[in-house]
Amino acid sequence: MSYERPNIRRMHGYTPGEQPQSGNPVKLNTNENPYSPASAVIEAARSIDPEALRRYPSPTSAVFRAEAAGAHGVHPDNIVCTNGGDELLRLAITTFVEPGRPIGMAEPSYSLYPVLAAIHDSPVERVELAPDWSMPEDFARRMNDAGVQLTFLVNPHAPSGTLYTTEEIAGLACDLDGVLLIDEAYVDFVDPELGHDTLPLIREFDNVLILRTLSKGYSLAGLRFGYGIGPAGLISPIATKTRDSYSVDAIAERVATAAVRHRVDAQQTWKAVRESREALRAELEALGLPCSPSQSNFVLTQIPAGMGGGAEGIYRALKARDIFVRYFDQPRLRDKLRISVGTPEENGQLLAALRGML
Amino acid sequence: MSYERPNIRRMHGYTPGEQPQSGNPVKLNTNENPYSPASAVIEAARSIDPEALRRYPSPTSAVFRAEAAGAHGVHPDNIVCTNGGDELLRLAITTFVEPGRPIGMAEPSYSLYPVLAAIHDSPVERVELAPDWSMPEDFARRMNDAGVQLTFLVNPHAPSGTLYTTEEIAGLACDLDGVLLIDEAYVDFVDPELGHDTLPLIREFDNVLILRTLSKGYSLAGLRFGYGIGPAGLISPIATKTRDSYSVDAIAERVATAAVRHRVDAQQTWKAVRESREALRAELEALGLPCSPSQSNFVLTQIPAGMGGGAEGIYRALKARDIFVRYFDQPRLRDKLRISVGTPEENGQLLAALRGML
Repeated sequence: MSYERPNIRRMHGYTPGEQPQSGNPVKLNTNENPYSPASAVIEAARSIDPEALRRYPSPTSAVFRAEAAGAHGVHPDNIVCTNGGDELLRLAITTFVEPGRPIGMAEPSYSLYPVLAAIHDSPVERVELAPDWSMPEDFARRMNDAGVQLTFLVNPHAPSGTLYTTEEIAGLACDLDGVLLIDEAYVDFVDPELGHDTLPLIREFDNVLILRTLSKGYSLAGLRFGYGIGPAGLISPIATKTRDSYSVDAIAERVATAAVRHRVDAQQTWKAVRESREALRAELEALGLPCSPSQSNFVLTQIPAGMGGGAEGIYRALKARDIFVRYFDQPRLRDKLRISVGTPEENGQLLAALRGML
Repeated sequence: MSYERPNIRRMHGYTPGEQPQSGNPVKLNTNENPYSPASAVIEAARSIDPEALRRYPSPTSAVFRAEAAGAHGVHPDNIVCTNGGDELLRLAITTFVEPGRPIGMAEPSYSLYPVLAAIHDSPVERVELAPDWSMPEDFARRMNDAGVQLTFLVNPHAPSGTLYTTEEIAGLACDLDGVLLIDEAYVDFVDPELGHDTLPLIREFDNVLILRTLSKGYSLAGLRFGYGIGPAGLISPIATKTRDSYSVDAIAERVATAAVRHRVDAQQTWKAVRESREALRAELEALGLPCSPSQSNFVLTQIPAGMGGGAEGIYRALKARDIFVRYFDQPRLRDKLRISVGTPEENGQLLAALRGML
């Protein structure tokens, strides 16, 4: 017999991007940073003390929280560490949403959100983005009307790369009845000249929770380290009640602390990615493939009708050449490809392959 | 305003054992293995490849699962890896228990179980163990009568160290209507002469899920690595639906794989712990402190009435000397101390301190 809950039996799990474990692929499908972690970060991993493995880790990750609090100009009580940003998404649901009450998101968005909602046995309230990926005026009202207790907003938006301004987000936070989780997985790649900064919102609003991760900006996707920044009223129940005990291991805390401490090194990679992003976008457009403006470490490019067998055809043809990009078989995205920004060499290999196909 | 769900607002979080982060304490309070991980295991941590940090880890932990499947004589599909055994406990609840339906446990047990139930908004069905820590005859019937969908049984039992036989557990699995999770966190320390082995139960019963962890037996509490072993019908929904995506990081999978591959080294520590356990027990009893027989890496000792200010008094006096043991302020345990088995030197320091107090 099946012991699964009915909602679990019905649902489908998350489909991660392909992670080829062998060969030497050009891997532009899961938004990893194309550059290695800083040498001080690798050294932190390699110099791990056997005693740190033998004993339980700090249950509060106090060392990392102090480091990150300093970097962000907040109090350590405004920070909770999680096993990747994904754990914070789940914890926000567990902590703030009654099962059965809807969870809000823009459509399209990160495809994990509806999976987490299904596990929680909650419906999803989806508000369609405008053709230019902007949020409709009535976004907050529709969430409130549906009784949404938690809204996920990925910013810069995925998969388009669109950046919503701090003012737009403040307006949303003000209007929403429930918690607004700003998923800033890609925020490190925003052009610093824009002066984008949502951190002041955690003082202004009691319902704003910011997600950060070291996966992209700090080249540490393999480490699984994320954190939440928010008012203590949102952070405390997660940190002291709903989070798995010891969810962040001793190596992860140590390596993550080194990464934030040496963030000047990571910032060099952000600059390189921004430059490559603009170059890649220009080259794709020169090939006749329009791209949305992106403030992230990927670009979303549109494949004109009939060209190269369409987006799915190009995705498959590239994969056959060991070049991985992301194709989403869903409305509004079936004619597009999401391409992570690689090194200039990787981008060059992709562009050469595309030129051969189109 | 508070955005917490009412059940989260009401509940109290888990209280981990003290983790002094400085000094050189005699730390016998959280059941860590007193011996370092094997050198091959430390080398696996130290030789981590920067590329393994930069990229997402294997979402299925296929390398570890193949290694563990070989070690246990099961199929990799019978194994799911988790971020510590604690994640498996949570996932079993998420996957098999409707919120509001009760979760079963023996009383007393691991104090995290009721916390996880509270997060899930489920009541706890507690069945009191007999004075000798054995299970009452009507254990399964009471769980079934209460509509329990998942029962946690820690074996060897914590905090007593009592081992339930495979036959007893098979009887329970047969009688229970719901899933039986056997929490084998401490099973590595069972005397091999007893021939204790519950693995055959996963073929015999469709409702048996076994929890294993590397925290104790493999001296890797700092790593957070656990796994479930069970019939594919129980493992699959956890592995493919409810588990956090990428919940096990690249370093953890690598180090855990080395630990299981080099388990002969860990087995030496199990033997040493067993020998020290019996010596510690004999010495405590010689001091007038009776101990339950233990097949684990701790002993539960009773402080006779009036002696040394009682269990709490002795706990505090030891702590003042930088010797940490575990005191539980709850029924049946207020007159007892749980003492992790340390090295012969650590046990000697504890015994010398106790002799000075009693």
